[in-house]
Amino acid sequence: MAKIKKYTIGVDIGGTNMKAVLFNGEKTVMNYSLGTPKDTISHMLIMIKALIDPLLEKAEADKVRVSGIGLSVAGAHDFNHHKIAKSPNLPLLDGVKLAEQVHKTMKMPVKMDNDANCFVRAESLIGAAKKFNNVYGIIISTGIGGGWWLNKKIYRGAHGGAGEPGGMVMDFTDTIKLEEAYQRLNQNNSLNMATEAYRGDVLAQRSYEEIGRLLGTACANIVNMVDPEAIVIGGGTVKSSDLFFPEMKKEMTKYIMSPIAASKVKLLKGKLGNDAGAIGAALLVN
Amino acid sequence: MAKIKKYTIGVDIGGTNMKAVLFNGEKTVMNYSLGTPKDTISHMLIMIKALIDPLLEKAEADKVRVSGIGLSVAGAHDFNHHKIAKSPNLPLLDGVKLAEQVHKTMKMPVKMDNDANCFVRAESLIGAAKKFNNVYGIIISTGIGGGWWLNKKIYRGAHGGAGEPGGMVMDFTDTIKLEEAYQRLNQNNSLNMATEAYRGDVLAQRSYEEIGRLLGTACANIVNMVDPEAIVIGGGTVKSSDLFFPEMKKEMTKYIMSPIAASKVKLLKGKLGNDAGAIGAALLVN
Repeated sequence: MAKIKKYTIGVDIGGTNMKAVLFNGEKTVMNYSLGTPKDTISHMLIMIKALIDPLLEKAEADKVRVSGIGLSVAGAHDFNHHKIAKSPNLPLLDGVKLAEQVHKTMKMPVKMDNDANCFVRAESLIGAAKKFNNVYGIIISTGIGGGWWLNKKIYRGAHGGAGEPGGMVMDFTDTIKLEEAYQRLNQNNSLNMATEAYRGDVLAQRSYEEIGRLLGTACANIVNMVDPEAIVIGGGTVKSSDLFFPEMKKEMTKYIMSPIAASKVKLLKGKLGNDAGAIGAALLVN
Repeated sequence: MAKIKKYTIGVDIGGTNMKAVLFNGEKTVMNYSLGTPKDTISHMLIMIKALIDPLLEKAEADKVRVSGIGLSVAGAHDFNHHKIAKSPNLPLLDGVKLAEQVHKTMKMPVKMDNDANCFVRAESLIGAAKKFNNVYGIIISTGIGGGWWLNKKIYRGAHGGAGEPGGMVMDFTDTIKLEEAYQRLNQNNSLNMATEAYRGDVLAQRSYEEIGRLLGTACANIVNMVDPEAIVIGGGTVKSSDLFFPEMKKEMTKYIMSPIAASKVKLLKGKLGNDAGAIGAALLVN
């Protein structure tokens, strides 16, 4: 008997672009992108519909049912009330129950999660950390976000406040958080700095070594706390991760307390690239 | 019908003293202490028997069966191989399968865990955090240990390396760990410093404020990572915790990312005192 086929749709709503994927449970069947409207929610809903409609047409052509829509949105979520508490890049979403709104527009089941949780869900289920059930995901781009995939679901903590490595204080004296320390080293300009480092600029290369030290130390703190099977990193910086990955691994190993954890924990680069968020959103719905 | 009654025995093996409790599932029926032998394992086994025998006699007099013995031992455990990997205070235990040895001597089921796990188990099941199912325990004495009580058991991580807050790097530049930073502020002499602070010594009081800042920041890092319902602190410093608790709470709240977690997480002082380790060990056996 043939397996019952169905699709799900995942939409990653970023500060610049929105990306949607039509997903068959294993891989992307079709994807589509549009610029993110920043003026009003009703405009955003129109554009989300415009983004999704071509995928629904494709599903119809394939004679496959679409069971629901998942949304990936950066920022702090209030999971108890199914709303976005604070979106750093899209202030118009602050306090908005976007999943409910999209449900009203599209007449389908809609679920929502933050981008780092969607990233680690996707990488754990079909990506770089596919073999593992205990995976800590870190997204490094302009900010630093995180999510923890534990026993086939996202661990959110008692009040939805878990998985915030960007807020980890890395300098007690001046109370500098991981995200701030990273942004300082990165000079808020990772693209230029990577180009310079690849060209051989010694200062840029040293900055990347420091970034490796910083991220490696933060990963050791994570391991000493939750000891996952693997840490998977994603976000824009993965492209230039060879500039800091060796240093990061070395530092991480150095500061893990348990010798067994130090020798066994895997540090992985995400392999779903820019699609990870949308795929992780598509994986929210069954 | 009457509830079937049974006792368990918990033994806390410390660097100076060993303490045993006879436990009825709710509270201590009898307890007994002896100095910790530091010369040979066979001497230690003789003294453990001498410590336990009076409790077995009491159980016999009460006509209650003793179902097993739990051991609480400070240090890094290799939980896969049921042995103590490294004991900072009792080097003679390094690499020793103490539970197996005690089982051979006492002919009863024996289980073993580290002191911080025993502490948080006891405080979560019958102590200060009795209402909660997601509790992070921190023992602060000469060193800093930790354990995480999640869904009615200790969360150990993928390789037994979780729950090591003492190793958390709190100063990225000089890579100072929480335990080191605490020891520096504490001048390795908490008893004298507390006396001085209570007498009104301003420098000692300031050191305690700094300790509060340090521990509060570390707790914020813990909340941003695992977001427990409560953090419970124990160990020798609880006695003088009024000297740093207000500052600790303030700093913790300041650096928690999630506003909901910041307002809801509880910071508690353990209430089982010196018995927590032995009771947590007694709670290891059914």
